[in-house]
Amino acid sequence: MGDGEHRRASPWTLERIRALRDSRAARDEHGLALIEGARFVVRARHQGFAIVGLVIAPDLIDTAGARRCRRELSERVPVSLLSEEEFRGLSTMEEPTGLMAIVRQRWVGLPTQRPKRGRLWLAAESIRSPGNLGTILRTAEAAGAAGLICLGPGIDPYQPRVIRASMGSIFGMRTVRATAEQLHAFKRCTGATVVGATAEARRDYRRGRYGPATVLMLGSERKGLSPRQRRLCDQLVRIPMAGATDSLNVASATSILLYESYRQRWPLG
Amino acid sequence: MGDGEHRRASPWTLERIRALRDSRAARDEHGLALIEGARFVVRARHQGFAIVGLVIAPDLIDTAGARRCRRELSERVPVSLLSEEEFRGLSTMEEPTGLMAIVRQRWVGLPTQRPKRGRLWLAAESIRSPGNLGTILRTAEAAGAAGLICLGPGIDPYQPRVIRASMGSIFGMRTVRATAEQLHAFKRCTGATVVGATAEARRDYRRGRYGPATVLMLGSERKGLSPRQRRLCDQLVRIPMAGATDSLNVASATSILLYESYRQRWPLG
Repeated sequence: MGDGEHRRASPWTLERIRALRDSRAARDEHGLALIEGARFVVRARHQGFAIVGLVIAPDLIDTAGARRCRRELSERVPVSLLSEEEFRGLSTMEEPTGLMAIVRQRWVGLPTQRPKRGRLWLAAESIRSPGNLGTILRTAEAAGAAGLICLGPGIDPYQPRVIRASMGSIFGMRTVRATAEQLHAFKRCTGATVVGATAEARRDYRRGRYGPATVLMLGSERKGLSPRQRRLCDQLVRIPMAGATDSLNVASATSILLYESYRQRWPLG
Repeated sequence: MGDGEHRRASPWTLERIRALRDSRAARDEHGLALIEGARFVVRARHQGFAIVGLVIAPDLIDTAGARRCRRELSERVPVSLLSEEEFRGLSTMEEPTGLMAIVRQRWVGLPTQRPKRGRLWLAAESIRSPGNLGTILRTAEAAGAAGLICLGPGIDPYQPRVIRASMGSIFGMRTVRATAEQLHAFKRCTGATVVGATAEARRDYRRGRYGPATVLMLGSERKGLSPRQRRLCDQLVRIPMAGATDSLNVASATSILLYESYRQRWPLG
Protein backbone atom coordinates (compact mmCIF):
# COMPACT_ATOMS: atom_id res chain seq x y z
CA MET A 1 0.00 0.00 0.00
CA GLY A 2 1.35 3.46 -0.83
CA ASP A 3 2.47 5.45 2.23
CA GLY A 4 0.06 8.29 1.77
CA GLU A 5 -2.99 6.33 0.77
CA HIS A 6 -4.67 6.58 4.12
CA ARG A 7 -3.72 10.09 5.10
CA ARG A 8 -6.93 11.60 3.84
CA ALA A 9 -10.37 10.33 2.98
CA SER A 10 -11.10 10.15 -0.72
CA PRO A 11 -14.02 12.21 -1.95
CA TRP A 12 -14.64 9.45 -4.51
CA THR A 13 -17.17 7.27 -2.79
CA LEU A 14 -18.41 4.06 -4.35
CA GLU A 15 -21.62 5.83 -5.20
CA ARG A 16 -19.89 8.69 -7.02
CA ILE A 17 -17.65 6.28 -8.90
CA ARG A 18 -20.65 4.24 -9.97
CA ALA A 19 -22.36 7.41 -11.17
CA LEU A 20 -19.34 8.23 -13.35
CA ARG A 21 -19.58 4.77 -14.86
CA ASP A 22 -23.31 4.78 -15.51
CA SER A 23 -24.50 8.33 -15.87
CA ARG A 24 -23.77 10.66 -18.71
CA ALA A 25 -25.17 13.50 -16.59
CA ALA A 26 -22.72 12.74 -13.76
CA ARG A 27 -19.80 12.66 -16.20
CA ASP A 28 -20.89 15.88 -17.85
CA GLU A 29 -21.58 17.72 -14.60
CA HIS A 30 -17.99 17.48 -13.43
CA GLY A 31 -16.28 16.91 -16.77
CA LEU A 32 -14.84 13.63 -15.53
CA ALA A 33 -14.45 10.09 -16.78
CA LEU A 34 -13.69 6.71 -15.26
CA ILE A 35 -10.84 4.69 -16.74
CA GLU A 36 -10.32 1.02 -15.96
CA GLY A 37 -6.99 -0.74 -16.30
CA ALA A 38 -3.43 0.46 -15.76
CA ARG A 39 -2.66 0.43 -19.46
CA PHE A 40 -5.26 3.08 -20.24
CA VAL A 41 -4.45 5.14 -17.16
CA VAL A 42 -0.80 5.25 -18.21
CA ARG A 43 -1.85 6.24 -21.71
CA ALA A 44 -4.03 9.08 -20.40
CA ARG A 45 -1.23 10.40 -18.16
CA HIS A 46 1.26 10.18 -20.97
CA GLN A 47 -1.04 12.35 -23.07
CA GLY A 48 -1.26 14.94 -20.31
CA PHE A 49 -4.71 14.13 -18.98
CA ALA A 50 -5.21 15.10 -15.34
CA ILE A 51 -5.85 12.18 -13.01
CA VAL A 52 -7.93 13.32 -10.02
CA GLY A 53 -8.59 10.06 -8.22
CA LEU A 54 -7.52 6.46 -7.97
CA VAL A 55 -9.75 3.47 -7.25
CA ILE A 56 -7.93 0.43 -5.96
CA ALA A 57 -8.88 -3.09 -4.96
CA PRO A 58 -5.58 -4.23 -3.37
CA ASP A 59 -6.53 -7.92 -3.53
CA LEU A 60 -7.09 -7.79 -7.28
CA ILE A 61 -3.93 -6.00 -8.33
CA ASP A 62 -1.51 -8.51 -9.75
CA THR A 63 0.29 -6.96 -12.67
CA ALA A 64 3.50 -4.97 -12.54
CA GLY A 65 1.83 -2.20 -14.56
CA ALA A 66 -0.98 -1.79 -12.06
CA ARG A 67 1.42 -1.84 -9.12
CA ARG A 68 3.62 0.83 -10.71
CA CYS A 69 0.64 2.95 -11.62
CA ARG A 70 -0.63 2.75 -8.04
CA ARG A 71 2.80 3.61 -6.64
CA GLU A 72 3.19 6.63 -8.86
CA LEU A 73 -0.28 8.03 -8.30
CA SER A 74 -1.34 7.08 -4.80
CA GLU A 75 0.51 9.88 -3.03
CA ARG A 76 -0.64 12.53 -5.46
CA VAL A 77 -4.37 11.94 -5.73
CA PRO A 78 -7.09 10.69 -3.39
CA VAL A 79 -7.33 6.90 -3.33
CA SER A 80 -10.55 4.96 -2.81
CA LEU A 81 -9.75 1.53 -1.44
CA LEU A 82 -12.39 -1.05 -2.35
CA SER A 83 -12.92 -4.65 -1.46
CA GLU A 84 -12.54 -7.19 -4.24
CA GLU A 85 -16.31 -7.64 -4.27
CA GLU A 86 -17.00 -3.92 -4.51
CA PHE A 87 -14.51 -3.58 -7.34
CA ARG A 88 -15.92 -6.50 -9.27
CA GLY A 89 -19.37 -4.96 -8.98
CA LEU A 90 -17.99 -1.79 -10.53
CA SER A 91 -15.82 -3.34 -13.21
CA THR A 92 -16.95 -3.75 -16.79
CA MET A 93 -14.14 -6.17 -17.55
CA GLU A 94 -14.22 -9.93 -17.46
CA GLU A 95 -10.96 -10.01 -15.57
CA PRO A 96 -10.78 -6.85 -13.46
CA THR A 97 -7.23 -5.67 -12.80
CA GLY A 98 -7.97 -3.90 -9.54
CA LEU A 99 -7.20 -0.37 -10.71
CA MET A 100 -9.32 2.48 -12.03
CA ALA A 101 -8.68 6.18 -12.26
CA ILE A 102 -10.86 9.24 -12.43
CA VAL A 103 -9.65 11.55 -15.15
CA ARG A 104 -10.61 15.04 -16.22
CA GLN A 105 -12.18 15.15 -19.69
CA ARG A 106 -10.39 17.39 -22.16
CA TRP A 107 -12.24 19.42 -24.73
CA VAL A 108 -10.58 21.81 -27.12
CA GLY A 109 -11.81 24.28 -29.72
CA LEU A 110 -11.65 23.76 -33.45
CA PRO A 111 -8.46 25.06 -35.07
CA THR A 112 -8.78 28.36 -36.88
CA GLN A 113 -5.75 28.14 -39.13
CA ARG A 114 -5.18 26.31 -42.36
CA PRO A 115 -3.00 23.30 -41.49
CA LYS A 116 0.42 23.00 -43.12
CA ARG A 117 -0.28 19.46 -44.23
CA GLY A 118 -3.35 17.30 -44.59
CA ARG A 119 -5.25 16.87 -41.34
CA LEU A 120 -8.09 14.50 -40.87
CA TRP A 121 -11.02 14.86 -38.47
CA LEU A 122 -14.06 12.81 -37.68
CA ALA A 123 -17.45 14.39 -37.00
CA ALA A 124 -20.46 12.58 -35.59
CA GLU A 125 -23.87 13.45 -34.26
CA SER A 126 -25.06 10.11 -32.92
CA ILE A 127 -23.34 6.75 -32.68
CA ARG A 128 -25.44 4.37 -30.67
CA SER A 129 -23.00 1.60 -29.84
CA PRO A 130 -20.06 2.44 -27.54
CA GLY A 131 -18.20 -0.45 -29.16
CA ASN A 132 -18.57 1.11 -32.59
CA LEU A 133 -17.50 4.57 -31.45
CA GLY A 134 -14.51 3.19 -29.54
CA THR A 135 -13.42 1.03 -32.48
CA ILE A 136 -13.69 4.06 -34.75
CA LEU A 137 -11.46 6.12 -32.45
CA ARG A 138 -8.89 3.31 -32.37
CA THR A 139 -8.72 3.08 -36.16
CA ALA A 140 -8.78 6.87 -36.46
CA GLU A 141 -5.73 7.28 -34.29
CA ALA A 142 -3.96 4.60 -36.33
CA ALA A 143 -4.81 6.46 -39.53
CA GLY A 144 -3.38 9.66 -38.07
CA ALA A 145 -6.63 11.51 -37.44
CA ALA A 146 -6.47 14.66 -35.34
CA GLY A 147 -9.68 14.27 -33.40
CA LEU A 148 -13.40 13.84 -33.06
CA ILE A 149 -15.91 16.66 -33.53
CA CYS A 150 -19.10 15.96 -31.58
CA LEU A 151 -22.06 17.68 -33.19
CA GLY A 152 -24.62 18.03 -30.43
CA PRO A 153 -25.08 15.98 -27.28
CA GLY A 154 -25.65 12.56 -28.90
CA ILE A 155 -22.01 11.52 -28.56
CA ASP A 156 -20.12 10.78 -25.35
CA PRO A 157 -16.56 9.71 -26.13
CA TYR A 158 -15.80 9.45 -22.39
CA GLN A 159 -18.30 6.66 -21.78
CA PRO A 160 -16.33 3.82 -20.13
CA ARG A 161 -17.11 1.28 -22.86
CA VAL A 162 -16.07 3.75 -25.55
CA ILE A 163 -12.76 4.32 -23.78
CA ARG A 164 -12.19 0.59 -23.54
CA ALA A 165 -13.12 -0.21 -27.15
CA SER A 166 -10.82 2.64 -28.23
CA MET A 167 -7.98 0.83 -26.43
CA GLY A 168 -7.07 4.22 -25.01
CA SER A 169 -6.95 5.95 -28.39
CA ILE A 170 -9.46 8.50 -27.10
CA PHE A 171 -6.54 9.96 -25.14
CA GLY A 172 -4.51 10.38 -28.30
CA MET A 173 -7.24 12.35 -30.07
CA ARG A 174 -8.62 15.84 -29.60
CA THR A 175 -12.28 15.99 -28.68
CA VAL A 176 -14.31 19.01 -29.73
CA ARG A 177 -17.93 19.97 -29.25
CA ALA A 178 -19.19 22.10 -32.09
CA THR A 179 -22.43 23.42 -33.52
CA ALA A 180 -23.17 23.29 -37.23
CA GLU A 181 -22.30 27.01 -37.38
CA GLN A 182 -18.92 26.42 -35.77
CA LEU A 183 -18.20 23.63 -38.22
CA HIS A 184 -19.09 26.00 -41.08
CA ALA A 185 -16.67 28.57 -39.66
CA PHE A 186 -14.00 25.85 -39.34
CA LYS A 187 -14.50 24.96 -43.01
CA ARG A 188 -14.13 28.59 -44.06
CA CYS A 189 -10.95 29.31 -42.15
CA THR A 190 -9.15 26.00 -42.72
CA GLY A 191 -10.39 25.12 -46.22
CA ALA A 192 -11.58 21.76 -44.88
CA THR A 193 -13.66 19.46 -47.04
CA VAL A 194 -16.42 17.51 -45.32
CA VAL A 195 -16.96 14.04 -46.77
CA GLY A 196 -19.91 11.82 -45.87
CA ALA A 197 -20.58 8.25 -46.94
CA THR A 198 -24.00 7.08 -48.02
CA ALA A 199 -25.18 4.20 -50.18
CA GLU A 200 -27.08 6.59 -52.48
CA ALA A 201 -24.08 8.71 -53.44
CA ARG A 202 -22.85 8.45 -57.04
CA ARG A 203 -19.19 9.04 -56.41
CA ASP A 204 -17.04 6.03 -55.51
CA TYR A 205 -15.17 6.77 -52.27
CA ARG A 206 -11.89 6.17 -54.08
CA ARG A 207 -12.66 9.21 -56.22
CA GLY A 208 -13.26 11.40 -53.18
CA ARG A 209 -10.90 14.37 -53.12
CA TYR A 210 -9.66 15.83 -49.92
CA GLY A 211 -8.50 19.40 -49.29
CA PRO A 212 -5.85 20.66 -46.86
CA ALA A 213 -8.08 19.34 -44.10
CA THR A 214 -10.74 16.67 -44.30
CA VAL A 215 -13.64 15.92 -42.04
CA LEU A 216 -15.20 12.45 -42.33
CA MET A 217 -18.85 12.82 -41.37
CA LEU A 218 -20.17 9.67 -39.66
CA GLY A 219 -23.84 8.75 -39.74
CA SER A 220 -25.68 6.83 -37.05
CA GLU A 221 -26.02 3.05 -37.19
CA ARG A 222 -29.70 2.96 -38.06
CA LYS A 223 -30.34 6.12 -40.03
CA GLY A 224 -27.02 7.06 -41.55
CA LEU A 225 -26.37 10.76 -42.11
CA SER A 226 -28.99 13.12 -40.70
CA PRO A 227 -30.34 15.95 -42.93
CA ARG A 228 -28.23 18.42 -40.94
CA GLN A 229 -25.13 16.29 -41.46
CA ARG A 230 -25.82 16.05 -45.20
CA ARG A 231 -26.07 19.82 -45.44
CA LEU A 232 -22.63 20.11 -43.86
CA CYS A 233 -21.07 17.74 -46.42
CA ASP A 234 -19.16 19.01 -49.44
CA GLN A 235 -18.92 15.56 -50.99
CA LEU A 236 -20.98 12.44 -50.64
CA VAL A 237 -19.29 9.18 -51.53
CA ARG A 238 -20.33 5.57 -51.53
CA ILE A 239 -18.47 2.39 -50.77
CA PRO A 240 -19.32 -0.09 -53.54
CA MET A 241 -21.09 -3.20 -52.28
CA ALA A 242 -21.55 -6.60 -53.91
CA GLY A 243 -24.05 -9.28 -52.98
CA ALA A 244 -27.27 -8.46 -51.21
CA THR A 245 -25.61 -6.12 -48.73
CA ASP A 246 -27.19 -2.70 -48.57
CA SER A 247 -25.07 -1.15 -45.85
CA LEU A 248 -21.93 -1.63 -43.80
CA ASN A 249 -21.34 -1.43 -40.09
CA VAL A 250 -20.42 2.20 -39.30
CA ALA A 251 -17.06 1.22 -37.81
CA SER A 252 -16.19 -0.90 -40.87
CA ALA A 253 -17.22 1.84 -43.30
CA THR A 254 -15.24 4.41 -41.34
CA SER A 255 -12.15 2.18 -41.28
CA ILE A 256 -12.29 1.90 -45.06
CA LEU A 257 -12.66 5.67 -45.50
CA LEU A 258 -9.95 6.46 -42.94
CA TYR A 259 -7.45 4.31 -44.79
CA GLU A 260 -8.49 5.72 -48.16
CA SER A 261 -7.69 9.11 -46.75
CA TYR A 262 -4.42 7.71 -45.37
CA ARG A 263 -3.60 6.42 -48.86
CA GLN A 264 -4.12 9.85 -50.38
CA ARG A 265 -2.12 11.64 -47.69
CA TRP A 266 0.72 9.14 -47.60
CA PRO A 267 0.85 7.49 -51.02
CA LEU A 268 3.19 4.57 -51.56
CA GLY A 269 6.51 5.76 -52.95
CA MET B 1 -53.05 -17.48 -36.94
CA GLY B 2 -52.15 -19.69 -39.92
CA ASP B 3 -54.69 -22.48 -40.58
CA GLY B 4 -52.33 -25.34 -40.08
CA GLU B 5 -50.41 -24.04 -37.13
CA HIS B 6 -52.22 -26.16 -34.58
CA ARG B 7 -52.65 -29.37 -36.51
CA ARG B 8 -49.54 -30.95 -35.10
CA ALA B 9 -47.36 -30.43 -32.08
CA SER B 10 -44.01 -28.82 -32.81
CA PRO B 11 -40.96 -30.83 -31.83
CA TRP B 12 -39.31 -27.48 -31.04
CA THR B 13 -39.95 -27.06 -27.37
CA LEU B 14 -38.88 -23.95 -25.53
CA GLU B 15 -36.06 -25.94 -24.01
CA ARG B 16 -34.73 -27.12 -27.38
CA ILE B 17 -34.96 -23.64 -28.84
CA ARG B 18 -33.08 -22.21 -25.88
CA ALA B 19 -30.39 -24.84 -26.35
CA LEU B 20 -29.96 -23.79 -30.00
CA ARG B 21 -29.51 -20.23 -28.83
CA ASP B 22 -27.04 -20.93 -26.03
CA SER B 23 -25.20 -24.11 -26.78
CA ARG B 24 -22.65 -24.68 -29.47
CA ALA B 25 -22.92 -28.41 -28.81
CA ALA B 26 -26.68 -28.36 -29.40
CA ARG B 27 -26.24 -26.45 -32.66
CA ASP B 28 -23.49 -28.76 -33.84
CA GLU B 29 -25.29 -31.95 -32.86
CA HIS B 30 -28.17 -31.33 -35.23
CA GLY B 31 -26.48 -28.89 -37.63
CA LEU B 32 -29.10 -26.25 -36.87
CA ALA B 33 -29.22 -22.55 -36.08
CA LEU B 34 -31.73 -20.13 -34.62
CA ILE B 35 -32.53 -16.99 -36.60
CA GLU B 36 -34.40 -14.07 -35.10
CA GLY B 37 -36.30 -11.52 -37.16
CA ALA B 38 -38.27 -11.84 -40.38
CA ARG B 39 -35.66 -10.00 -42.38
CA PHE B 40 -32.98 -12.58 -41.74
CA VAL B 41 -35.38 -15.51 -42.15
CA VAL B 42 -36.37 -14.17 -45.57
CA ARG B 43 -32.72 -13.75 -46.47
CA ALA B 44 -31.92 -17.33 -45.46
CA ARG B 45 -34.85 -18.73 -47.48
CA HIS B 46 -33.90 -16.64 -50.47
CA GLN B 47 -30.42 -18.17 -50.35
CA GLY B 48 -31.89 -21.66 -50.28
CA PHE B 49 -31.39 -22.46 -46.62
CA ALA B 50 -33.86 -25.06 -45.29
CA ILE B 51 -36.20 -23.75 -42.60
CA VAL B 52 -37.25 -26.60 -40.30
CA GLY B 53 -39.25 -24.79 -37.62
CA LEU B 54 -40.93 -21.52 -36.81
CA VAL B 55 -41.13 -19.86 -33.38
CA ILE B 56 -43.93 -17.34 -33.04
CA ALA B 57 -45.17 -15.01 -30.31
CA PRO B 58 -48.46 -13.89 -31.90
CA ASP B 59 -48.79 -10.90 -29.56
CA LEU B 60 -45.42 -9.50 -30.55
CA ILE B 61 -45.73 -9.73 -34.32
CA ASP B 62 -46.50 -6.32 -35.70
CA THR B 63 -44.63 -5.89 -38.95
CA ALA B 64 -45.89 -6.79 -42.41
CA GLY B 65 -42.67 -8.70 -43.03
CA ALA B 66 -43.12 -10.91 -39.98
CA ARG B 67 -46.78 -11.53 -40.82
CA ARG B 68 -45.93 -12.55 -44.39
CA CYS B 69 -43.09 -14.74 -43.22
CA ARG B 70 -45.41 -16.47 -40.77
CA ARG B 71 -48.11 -16.91 -43.43
CA GLU B 72 -45.71 -18.44 -45.92
CA LEU B 73 -44.02 -20.80 -43.53
CA SER B 74 -46.54 -21.81 -40.92
CA GLU B 75 -48.22 -24.52 -43.00
CA ARG B 76 -44.96 -26.01 -44.14
CA VAL B 77 -42.95 -26.36 -40.97
CA PRO B 78 -43.77 -27.06 -37.32
CA VAL B 79 -44.70 -23.90 -35.42
CA SER B 80 -43.96 -23.31 -31.74
CA LEU B 81 -46.37 -20.76 -30.34
CA LEU B 82 -44.93 -18.86 -27.40
CA SER B 83 -46.34 -16.29 -25.03
CA GLU B 84 -44.92 -12.80 -25.24
CA GLU B 85 -43.07 -13.39 -22.00
CA GLU B 86 -41.54 -16.67 -23.18
CA PHE B 87 -40.44 -15.06 -26.42
CA ARG B 88 -38.88 -12.06 -24.68
CA GLY B 89 -36.95 -14.43 -22.45
CA LEU B 90 -35.58 -16.09 -25.57
CA SER B 91 -34.92 -13.01 -27.65
CA THR B 92 -31.53 -11.38 -27.89
CA MET B 93 -32.98 -8.21 -29.40
CA GLU B 94 -34.00 -5.04 -27.62
CA GLU B 95 -37.25 -4.96 -29.52
CA PRO B 96 -38.23 -8.56 -30.28
CA THR B 97 -40.29 -8.91 -33.44
CA GLY B 98 -42.12 -12.07 -32.41
CA LEU B 99 -40.64 -14.37 -35.04
CA MET B 100 -37.74 -16.78 -35.09
CA ALA B 101 -36.92 -19.69 -37.34
CA ILE B 102 -34.83 -22.81 -37.00
CA VAL B 103 -32.63 -23.26 -40.03
CA ARG B 104 -30.36 -26.02 -41.21
CA GLN B 105 -26.69 -25.01 -41.27
CA ARG B 106 -25.01 -25.35 -44.64
CA TRP B 107 -21.42 -26.44 -45.00
CA VAL B 108 -19.70 -26.99 -48.31
CA GLY B 109 -16.29 -28.27 -49.39
CA LEU B 110 -13.47 -26.14 -50.68
CA PRO B 111 -13.46 -25.68 -54.46
CA THR B 112 -10.95 -27.79 -56.33
CA GLN B 113 -10.72 -25.82 -59.54
CA ARG B 114 -8.88 -22.66 -60.39
CA PRO B 115 -11.50 -19.89 -60.50
CA LYS B 116 -12.03 -18.01 -63.78
CA ARG B 117 -11.69 -14.68 -62.05
CA GLY B 118 -10.41 -13.48 -58.71
CA ARG B 119 -12.17 -15.05 -55.77
CA LEU B 120 -11.71 -13.97 -52.22
CA TRP B 121 -12.05 -16.11 -49.11
CA LEU B 122 -11.66 -15.51 -45.42
CA ALA B 123 -10.05 -18.05 -43.11
CA ALA B 124 -10.13 -17.93 -39.33
CA GLU B 125 -9.20 -20.16 -36.45
CA SER B 126 -10.56 -18.23 -33.48
CA ILE B 127 -12.54 -14.99 -33.31
CA ARG B 128 -13.71 -14.38 -29.79
CA SER B 129 -16.37 -11.75 -30.24
CA PRO B 130 -19.54 -12.71 -32.13
CA GLY B 131 -19.96 -9.02 -32.97
CA ASN B 132 -16.55 -8.94 -34.64
CA LEU B 133 -17.13 -12.13 -36.63
CA GLY B 134 -20.59 -10.99 -37.73
CA THR B 135 -19.33 -7.56 -38.76
CA ILE B 136 -16.53 -9.21 -40.73
CA LEU B 137 -19.02 -11.42 -42.60
CA ARG B 138 -21.16 -8.37 -43.41
CA THR B 139 -18.22 -6.45 -44.86
CA ALA B 140 -16.94 -9.56 -46.62
CA GLU B 141 -20.19 -10.07 -48.48
CA ALA B 142 -20.15 -6.41 -49.49
CA ALA B 143 -16.61 -6.82 -50.80
CA GLY B 144 -17.68 -9.83 -52.88
CA ALA B 145 -16.05 -12.54 -50.79
CA ALA B 146 -17.00 -16.13 -51.55
CA GLY B 147 -17.03 -17.50 -48.05
CA LEU B 148 -15.49 -18.27 -44.70
CA ILE B 149 -13.08 -21.12 -44.09
CA CYS B 150 -13.20 -22.24 -40.45
CA LEU B 151 -9.90 -23.78 -39.40
CA GLY B 152 -10.74 -25.97 -36.46
CA PRO B 153 -13.61 -25.76 -33.99
CA GLY B 154 -12.89 -22.26 -32.60
CA ILE B 155 -15.32 -20.56 -34.97
CA ASP B 156 -19.10 -20.85 -34.97
CA PRO B 157 -20.60 -18.64 -37.70
CA TYR B 158 -24.09 -19.88 -36.80
CA GLN B 159 -24.04 -18.42 -33.30
CA PRO B 160 -27.15 -16.19 -33.01
CA ARG B 161 -25.18 -13.02 -32.28
CA VAL B 162 -22.87 -13.67 -35.22
CA ILE B 163 -25.88 -14.06 -37.51
CA ARG B 164 -27.36 -10.83 -36.23
CA ALA B 165 -24.15 -8.79 -36.46
CA SER B 166 -23.70 -10.14 -39.99
CA MET B 167 -27.12 -8.65 -40.84
CA GLY B 168 -27.86 -11.93 -42.57
CA SER B 169 -24.70 -11.89 -44.69
CA ILE B 170 -23.79 -15.30 -43.30
CA PHE B 171 -26.52 -16.65 -45.59
CA GLY B 172 -24.89 -15.08 -48.63
CA MET B 173 -21.52 -16.70 -47.92
CA ARG B 174 -20.25 -20.24 -48.18
CA THR B 175 -19.08 -21.76 -44.94
CA VAL B 176 -16.37 -24.41 -45.01
CA ARG B 177 -14.64 -26.41 -42.31
CA ALA B 178 -11.11 -27.30 -43.28
CA THR B 179 -7.94 -28.65 -41.77
CA ALA B 180 -4.56 -27.09 -42.49
CA GLU B 181 -3.91 -29.99 -44.91
CA GLN B 182 -7.12 -29.29 -46.80
CA LEU B 183 -6.23 -25.62 -47.07
CA HIS B 184 -2.81 -26.62 -48.46
CA ALA B 185 -4.55 -28.81 -51.04
CA PHE B 186 -6.89 -25.92 -51.89
CA LYS B 187 -3.89 -23.66 -52.45
CA ARG B 188 -2.26 -26.22 -54.75
CA CYS B 189 -5.27 -26.83 -56.96
CA THR B 190 -6.61 -23.28 -57.17
CA GLY B 191 -3.37 -21.31 -57.06
CA ALA B 192 -4.72 -19.34 -54.12
CA THR B 193 -2.50 -16.95 -52.20
CA VAL B 194 -2.98 -16.77 -48.44
CA VAL B 195 -2.43 -13.29 -46.98
CA GLY B 196 -2.23 -12.55 -43.27
CA ALA B 197 -1.94 -9.21 -41.54
CA THR B 198 0.38 -8.63 -38.63
CA ALA B 199 2.00 -5.53 -37.19
CA GLU B 200 5.49 -7.05 -37.58
CA ALA B 201 5.30 -7.65 -41.33
CA ARG B 202 7.50 -5.50 -43.54
CA ARG B 203 5.26 -5.32 -46.56
CA ASP B 204 2.61 -2.57 -46.64
CA TYR B 205 -0.80 -4.14 -47.27
CA ARG B 206 -1.18 -1.98 -50.36
CA ARG B 207 1.78 -3.84 -51.89
CA GLY B 208 0.18 -7.21 -51.23
CA ARG B 209 -0.32 -9.16 -54.45
CA TYR B 210 -3.18 -11.50 -54.93
CA GLY B 211 -3.34 -14.52 -57.22
CA PRO B 212 -6.36 -16.00 -59.02
CA ALA B 213 -7.81 -16.68 -55.60
CA THR B 214 -6.97 -15.00 -52.33
CA VAL B 215 -7.52 -16.11 -48.77
CA LEU B 216 -7.37 -13.44 -46.07
CA MET B 217 -6.18 -15.12 -42.91
CA LEU B 218 -7.71 -13.56 -39.79
CA GLY B 219 -6.00 -13.69 -36.42
CA SER B 220 -7.74 -13.73 -33.06
CA GLU B 221 -8.44 -10.53 -31.15
CA ARG B 222 -5.86 -11.04 -28.45
CA LYS B 223 -3.11 -13.04 -30.06
CA GLY B 224 -3.33 -12.29 -33.76
CA LEU B 225 -2.24 -15.04 -36.15
CA SER B 226 -1.39 -18.37 -34.54
CA PRO B 227 1.85 -20.17 -35.52
CA ARG B 228 -0.21 -22.61 -37.60
CA GLN B 229 -1.95 -19.72 -39.37
CA ARG B 230 1.39 -18.05 -40.10
CA ARG B 231 2.71 -21.25 -41.65
CA LEU B 232 -0.27 -21.27 -43.99
CA CYS B 233 0.37 -17.69 -45.17
CA ASP B 234 2.18 -16.95 -48.43
CA GLN B 235 2.42 -13.24 -47.66
CA LEU B 236 2.38 -11.26 -44.45
CA VAL B 237 1.37 -7.63 -44.72
CA ARG B 238 0.96 -4.80 -42.27
CA ILE B 239 -1.46 -1.93 -42.08
CA PRO B 240 0.59 1.19 -41.32
CA MET B 241 -0.35 2.84 -38.03
CA ALA B 242 0.30 6.35 -36.75
CA GLY B 243 0.14 7.59 -33.18
CA ALA B 244 0.59 5.24 -30.26
CA THR B 245 -1.67 2.57 -31.72
CA ASP B 246 -0.09 -0.85 -31.91
CA SER B 247 -3.00 -2.82 -33.31
CA LEU B 248 -6.40 -2.49 -34.88
CA ASN B 249 -9.68 -4.15 -34.07
CA VAL B 250 -9.85 -7.37 -36.13
CA ALA B 251 -13.06 -6.30 -37.88
CA SER B 252 -11.57 -2.90 -38.78
CA ALA B 253 -8.35 -4.44 -40.07
CA THR B 254 -10.28 -7.00 -42.09
CA SER B 255 -12.51 -4.29 -43.58
CA ILE B 256 -9.44 -2.41 -44.76
CA LEU B 257 -7.90 -5.55 -46.29
CA LEU B 258 -11.17 -6.65 -47.89
CA TYR B 259 -11.51 -3.33 -49.68
CA GLU B 260 -7.86 -3.32 -50.71
CA SER B 261 -8.54 -6.65 -52.35
CA TYR B 262 -11.72 -5.19 -53.87
CA ARG B 263 -9.65 -2.33 -55.27
CA GLN B 264 -7.22 -4.72 -56.93
CA ARG B 265 -9.97 -6.93 -58.35
CA TRP B 266 -12.17 -4.09 -59.53
CA PRO B 267 -9.90 -1.12 -60.19
CA LEU B 268 -11.46 2.23 -60.98
CA GLY B 269 -11.71 2.69 -64.75
